[in-house]
Amino acid sequence: MAERIGQYTVKLTEKVYVHSYAAVAGKLEGEGPLGGQLDAVYNDAYLGEKSWEKAESRFQKKALEQALLKGQLTPNDLNFVFAGDLLNQCIGSAYGLRDINVPFSGLFGACSTMAQGLALGAVFIDSGAAQKCAALTSSHFCSAERQFRYPLEYGGQRPETSQWTVTGSGAAVLSNQGAGTYIKAVSLGRIVDLGIKDANNMGAAMAPAAAQTIADYLKDTGTNQSHYDMIVTGDLGSVGSELMLELLAEEGVDLGAKHTDCGTLIFDRARQDVYAGGSGCGCSAVVICSHILNALRDKKIHEALFVGTGALMSPTSVQQGESIPSIAHLVHFSG
Amino acid sequence: MAERIGQYTVKLTEKVYVHSYAAVAGKLEGEGPLGGQLDAVYNDAYLGEKSWEKAESRFQKKALEQALLKGQLTPNDLNFVFAGDLLNQCIGSAYGLRDINVPFSGLFGACSTMAQGLALGAVFIDSGAAQKCAALTSSHFCSAERQFRYPLEYGGQRPETSQWTVTGSGAAVLSNQGAGTYIKAVSLGRIVDLGIKDANNMGAAMAPAAAQTIADYLKDTGTNQSHYDMIVTGDLGSVGSELMLELLAEEGVDLGAKHTDCGTLIFDRARQDVYAGGSGCGCSAVVICSHILNALRDKKIHEALFVGTGALMSPTSVQQGESIPSIAHLVHFSG
Repeated sequence: MAERIGQYTVKLTEKVYVHSYAAVAGKLEGEGPLGGQLDAVYNDAYLGEKSWEKAESRFQKKALEQALLKGQLTPNDLNFVFAGDLLNQCIGSAYGLRDINVPFSGLFGACSTMAQGLALGAVFIDSGAAQKCAALTSSHFCSAERQFRYPLEYGGQRPETSQWTVTGSGAAVLSNQGAGTYIKAVSLGRIVDLGIKDANNMGAAMAPAAAQTIADYLKDTGTNQSHYDMIVTGDLGSVGSELMLELLAEEGVDLGAKHTDCGTLIFDRARQDVYAGGSGCGCSAVVICSHILNALRDKKIHEALFVGTGALMSPTSVQQGESIPSIAHLVHFSG
Repeated sequence: MAERIGQYTVKLTEKVYVHSYAAVAGKLEGEGPLGGQLDAVYNDAYLGEKSWEKAESRFQKKALEQALLKGQLTPNDLNFVFAGDLLNQCIGSAYGLRDINVPFSGLFGACSTMAQGLALGAVFIDSGAAQKCAALTSSHFCSAERQFRYPLEYGGQRPETSQWTVTGSGAAVLSNQGAGTYIKAVSLGRIVDLGIKDANNMGAAMAPAAAQTIADYLKDTGTNQSHYDMIVTGDLGSVGSELMLELLAEEGVDLGAKHTDCGTLIFDRARQDVYAGGSGCGCSAVVICSHILNALRDKKIHEALFVGTGALMSPTSVQQGESIPSIAHLVHFSG
């Protein structure tokens, strides 16, 4: 049974363990600071497929296969898969997972999808509805660029606030049995829209959602940053991270050195030409399913909040002059 | 606590009540057989907005407002909203619900979204993670046509197997307290892809998924069609319904007169020029949140299976020569 704490938090009363996890990514990610922690790096952005969209599906399939393999499981051991992505109609997930024959719950949380999937999976396991389930998502620089921005061949200039879509996928298997890292509580976010209209500044659009979800969680649990070893946001990048810290400071919350961001961790901005950092559903999925869960497994950290952030816009909504609503979902890992 | 029954079914151990529900739709739906049961009918397809996408968001907002009003609730009474739609990046839901300030779980289940949202909401309530939550979705003929098919101005010819996207939205509020209709069990479906490539024949693509989920559920629960007053599929339309019944007959399951389909209920095919029937996320959402839940409320039926069906393709995947994966999620209503 789950238990509601405060206004927005769900505390899990049974331990929901991270049974296994895996991250697979492309060449640029492999050359980044976390390259050595990835389960596989593919230099071919097509992965042998005929389109980038098919390649993205394949990344998802490979991440799940790796996570299952590392956990000595087969798809038959899963009761549910929670997955989604940013391609129109989430085809990265549907085509990537169409052959596994596991009950499938498609999600749309934009870049917050990994946190959302983990949160839903954790509640399902805690409720008894599942013994094991998987959460995963993906993104691909090439499929994202042509869908959201310009054809790659156009070679458009990028502003400094723009972020670089991660090519890769991360998958985690949750279980009602196990040892080590587990999910203690989750909090789904509320949509926030402070009127940002610049689709090249997603970090700024998502910062208020991250700040809100973190503030809510600290209030609901009566904790502050000192209770956590790490508070890791999804893909705010350098610009969004700074804005989020400012917004929290206005509310008297100083995350200080406890805060880090998957978008700044995955690339070396001094060495790699990625502007404000990484983004895309795959960004936090890859970083959580390698670096962060490794650090928990190795007892380098014990309490970590993962706050996945998503911008809920489309090219159509931006063209119609709309601002960018955003959301942030929180998962509390303990280990 | 939920309980797993058989291989794919989740039985809810606490009653999850349908607290209130509402359906709002456009002119054509208002003129159809269920027109008199709708909470509001809007003759202006724009609903006073400047685009069809904004109008679709507004339909969702209105459906939720109506459902809350009928249930004497405000958004503050909801712990979660589960919503999604078929517009790219689910903007119907994100923009429609951005102002309600309720934790939001975005879904992508194509036309199965209403069943998926009800299933997830029911598990969340049964687990104790929520006391009340809402499930809703929408579609809009005009936004769907231009996104999935042709500009409306083009006036493209439609084949006989094509379906007519419903303009409208349905919303239901679930609660851990109440009386009357409740959700007894849910089953999330597995993706099925039998190789159908004709995007003008969604019913055929979705029929195998519906057949599979129904067969699984009957097996898991040790029941047959005689245990139910109605087995209502999402939006198979006339072509898909016939195929599904054939597929089930091959497995020795004869649904007979127990089967009906939201896509055939919402329009009068003899009188309205809708080809094989209604479709779109809004189709089953509107029919369930009016006609079907009314029949349960009025004790005309007591046991009903709602099997929402979705085609998980995109125009891009179809252009790349892919077949159409589909899915069906099941919700067992009792009252």
